[in-house]
Amino acid sequence: MTHSTTLPRRHLLAGSAAALGALGLAGWTGNARAQAAAAPAAKPLPAYAGWKTPEALIVHSTSTLETRRSAFGTSVITPSNQLYVRNNLPAPDAAILDNRDAWSVSIEGVKNPRSLTLAELRTLGVETVATVLQCSGNGRGFFPSKPSGTPWQVGAAGCVVWSGVPLRNVVAALGGLADGAAYLTGTGGEKLPEGVDPLTVLVERSVPVKALDDALLAWEMNGEPLSLAHGGPLRLVVPGYQGVNNIKYVKRVAFTAAQSQARIMSHGYRMSPPGSKASPDQPSVWEMGVKSWINGPLADKGALKPGQVQVHGVAFGGTRGIKGVEVSVDGGKTWQAAKLIGPDLGPFAWRQFALPVRLEAGTHVLASRATDTAGNVQAEQREENLGGYNNASWRDHAVTVTVA
Amino acid sequence: MTHSTTLPRRHLLAGSAAALGALGLAGWTGNARAQAAAAPAAKPLPAYAGWKTPEALIVHSTSTLETRRSAFGTSVITPSNQLYVRNNLPAPDAAILDNRDAWSVSIEGVKNPRSLTLAELRTLGVETVATVLQCSGNGRGFFPSKPSGTPWQVGAAGCVVWSGVPLRNVVAALGGLADGAAYLTGTGGEKLPEGVDPLTVLVERSVPVKALDDALLAWEMNGEPLSLAHGGPLRLVVPGYQGVNNIKYVKRVAFTAAQSQARIMSHGYRMSPPGSKASPDQPSVWEMGVKSWINGPLADKGALKPGQVQVHGVAFGGTRGIKGVEVSVDGGKTWQAAKLIGPDLGPFAWRQFALPVRLEAGTHVLASRATDTAGNVQAEQREENLGGYNNASWRDHAVTVTVA
Repeated sequence: MTHSTTLPRRHLLAGSAAALGALGLAGWTGNARAQAAAAPAAKPLPAYAGWKTPEALIVHSTSTLETRRSAFGTSVITPSNQLYVRNNLPAPDAAILDNRDAWSVSIEGVKNPRSLTLAELRTLGVETVATVLQCSGNGRGFFPSKPSGTPWQVGAAGCVVWSGVPLRNVVAALGGLADGAAYLTGTGGEKLPEGVDPLTVLVERSVPVKALDDALLAWEMNGEPLSLAHGGPLRLVVPGYQGVNNIKYVKRVAFTAAQSQARIMSHGYRMSPPGSKASPDQPSVWEMGVKSWINGPLADKGALKPGQVQVHGVAFGGTRGIKGVEVSVDGGKTWQAAKLIGPDLGPFAWRQFALPVRLEAGTHVLASRATDTAGNVQAEQREENLGGYNNASWRDHAVTVTVA
Repeated sequence: MTHSTTLPRRHLLAGSAAALGALGLAGWTGNARAQAAAAPAAKPLPAYAGWKTPEALIVHSTSTLETRRSAFGTSVITPSNQLYVRNNLPAPDAAILDNRDAWSVSIEGVKNPRSLTLAELRTLGVETVATVLQCSGNGRGFFPSKPSGTPWQVGAAGCVVWSGVPLRNVVAALGGLADGAAYLTGTGGEKLPEGVDPLTVLVERSVPVKALDDALLAWEMNGEPLSLAHGGPLRLVVPGYQGVNNIKYVKRVAFTAAQSQARIMSHGYRMSPPGSKASPDQPSVWEMGVKSWINGPLADKGALKPGQVQVHGVAFGGTRGIKGVEVSVDGGKTWQAAKLIGPDLGPFAWRQFALPVRLEAGTHVLASRATDTAGNVQAEQREENLGGYNNASWRDHAVTVTVA
């Protein structure tokens, strides 16, 4: 079959200019279709993610889709059709969803190792966890050093709700951990390109075994069976850890004494100092640090009118949750405590914050700075590194608005 | 433009049979398209809701769409594309979304009454609230008396996240309530049919003024600008109250001494005893009572295999939240405490529950019974009434499964 990648039905039905305007997309207010015709064509959504909302997304490549900052709402959960995508290999054939219950995952490094089908996993328990899913390269676009890789700004992140079986239930059903388990290693089920050493392309990541406490084998996201784009039929979810550790199409979970030898683990996603070469002795991107950013007001629609606005955004603290958020409207000279709003979905989710402020005519730099429940304060500066990972700098994430 | 109402792209892309199977739809497992061709054609989705997932919905009419019990997931939030729709009048023209910020609502019964645009409302505050949205006729399909109206079973309900401004902020900005305010009355912006007394068709509902404490003027649902199908650009959300009180396309909010004279208030949605006539002295459908039901396992896919299953479902308590849920696998003879799972989104949201049980060969009647935080226990029997409203009977909501 063929599928259109033009404006989706829902927005045309709802009045396209309005729908686009509501999303706050620069250049799309007014006569959207006329402007679209005049502007350089945006890259279309890739087929496996063709059901997503194109106006909400920046298509960097077929394997990298970013949520526009202006598309983040204030309803805590990021809707699936606006959630970013980052695949390290091409998505598997959609046929792997033909019989979800038949998908099997090999559990190794336990007393009684064996493979379990998704149907069997469903009998072992069900839990629901909200997590921030974030690519470790989110914010790379703010590095002046222009590291190679997708120049994500804030939109390689979202907050979603997973359902599945706690991995600890599975381990318990198989007799508990075998001796010597130091790492929880997940392996993706992508088809590997031929003619290359598998270890150079295999998506396999190890995290410290303590992550077992919270890890989930998830078959559902945001109330729907897990889509191919997000790792369906089964994904290893490691709450509080950077996205790459949340293995899609997971086909093997092993409790191992050593980290995976796959290059994505040994050399990829390492915090390599500038000028160095990546190596396994450098820190891997595991738990996320404390971070926040402002999603509104933005400058997309042009100048704001003088008066009160609600400065709002999101904040998260990896595995530790958020204690509070401060907001500055003078580029970080002075700070005010914002209010955390909306439901608290637990330590792995993000919190929304809001602060009413009066903005008079002029240019204002709006910034946010979060503190996690352990007292860690979001840093002003990024930690420079070769890959452009783990950028949580509040200064990099500030936004400038003009009031006139 | 024209729009297809056949299977949406996402499911075709994901392997249609698998996607349908995963939703647990009876008769849709196997070769979905072949069966679809053989089965009587389902009613297509109406144009204003054409972006929803057809497999997840039962189309009763163009203004009544029900979520299939088998489509409810375990991720707390009901995704917008699976959420039920019940409109009392045809949806307005989609042009009302052309300029969302220009939508205006008249605020009356305050010290300084005036109209406010959505752009102005956005400056007055932002809050996020998760609520169960439920049609008061949900469960009508279980009444043996077959009251007139849509025979909803469990799917005229969902749990969604709203963002907007607390109505109390708006009242405060306009000087506070005028004297004598006893009701909060909302008026919908639907186009009224011509040639009839407007009061016989106007969508206008009054709730006790205490609802002001929690009410929201909402412009966003589940992270997206509020769709036309769900009342965009602006909806009055009254957390904990039956759906009809959550006025779509709200154009007027009035604090009044008396209830609305519109027929939908005076005679509609009244708890009229069987054999009586509806009248304004009978209780209106306001706060929701304590209620729960099981969403799995279901009999849709045929017999279950003997062994352990996770019995799961949802429970809510109107404005009071949920203290606990019991589950029975013998039709209510004996009960066991289920575990509440997943994040608690606050008193107005539903909680998910789960209980692992072993089911041996035979037929089993699975039921759930919730208790709210005030100690009210979900009733065994429905309260008989002319309109088939407020059905919270645990017995009516039980499901029968066969194990073989």
